[in-house]
Amino acid sequence: MTRLGILLSGRGSNFEAIADHVAAGDLEAEIAVVISNRSEAPGLEAARRRGLPAVAIPSKGLDREVYDRMAIEELRRCGVGLVCLAGFMRLLSATFVRAFPNRILNIHPSLLPSFPGLDAQHQALEHGVRVSGCTVHFVDEYLDAGPILAQAPVPVLDTDTVETLAARILKEEHRIYSEALRIVIGGNYRIEGRRVILG
Amino acid sequence: MTRLGILLSGRGSNFEAIADHVAAGDLEAEIAVVISNRSEAPGLEAARRRGLPAVAIPSKGLDREVYDRMAIEELRRCGVGLVCLAGFMRLLSATFVRAFPNRILNIHPSLLPSFPGLDAQHQALEHGVRVSGCTVHFVDEYLDAGPILAQAPVPVLDTDTVETLAARILKEEHRIYSEALRIVIGGNYRIEGRRVILG
Repeated sequence: MTRLGILLSGRGSNFEAIADHVAAGDLEAEIAVVISNRSEAPGLEAARRRGLPAVAIPSKGLDREVYDRMAIEELRRCGVGLVCLAGFMRLLSATFVRAFPNRILNIHPSLLPSFPGLDAQHQALEHGVRVSGCTVHFVDEYLDAGPILAQAPVPVLDTDTVETLAARILKEEHRIYSEALRIVIGGNYRIEGRRVILG
Repeated sequence: MTRLGILLSGRGSNFEAIADHVAAGDLEAEIAVVISNRSEAPGLEAARRRGLPAVAIPSKGLDREVYDRMAIEELRRCGVGLVCLAGFMRLLSATFVRAFPNRILNIHPSLLPSFPGLDAQHQALEHGVRVSGCTVHFVDEYLDAGPILAQAPVPVLDTDTVETLAARILKEEHRIYSEALRIVIGGNYRIEGRRVILG
């Protein structure tokens, strides 16, 4: 059983979707720990309600390296083999990335490489694209930049606000994050350059 | 009837798709002239076979401004009201863009703003995206940068080569270019910032 470590900063709706898939038995994994850098993150409370280990490691005032070493230690203590960022609003240090090589996933609400960084849905609306979407990728030291595991397109409507577009994309996020997890857990892939080749 | 001017450098398969839609009567337009910067472009021959005015204006050795003025003159002589770039491998000068404000369209084989410039399909494969596509946009002075009229997503498969991906995208190009033309010809849209708002 692959032991998942979830990192989140907010409500963690992608964490909840993963937890639902695990509970339904269609992901061969268990959630070993949920960590948040914000003690008041609703995602921590959601984890506790599900009876999952939930740990706050506040990041405020801490040097990135120091913080990341604390997070790595907690993940190792819980025997985590695969780290899932689910709305974790921090860039990981090289130390963190090297501690879990090609074992950290992130989800981003755009079709990368378009609109990396904050407020991707707002960026998409401002740019006037007719198609946006979401991306699950391996995490490297750069922002929203590692090899891509899964993407889903989502139409952008003339009537969209950031909220309606974000909601439409979120639905696909919940679907493809578990799809990507299934690929990584299954192990039937290889990374060639930036490409993830399945099968 | 909107009079279209088509600019191409090669085989002009998007020109042929537009011509088919015009011939079928589902585009309220007529093709006034097909211009190529390369005399040997197969697209010119295809235009002649269809009985359409086909003009070679070779660009070799000419300053961009000088060339663009020649093209503008020919387009005006033919009463062109809407310019369609269909594989025209040149950046337009500010003079050209200002001669037809918001009346020049281009199609690009990626979901812009991802992968502007040459070899977009190759760029997409190298980047390892799982979704690419195509974009019809208004042309400004920057490369593949104007307000977006239409986009279509296209899946990228593990087995894709540049050729198979390009062929899958091209099918959608042929569809959305006429869709975008129908919007511009109908006139039922407005441009707000970078956004094209329909209706």
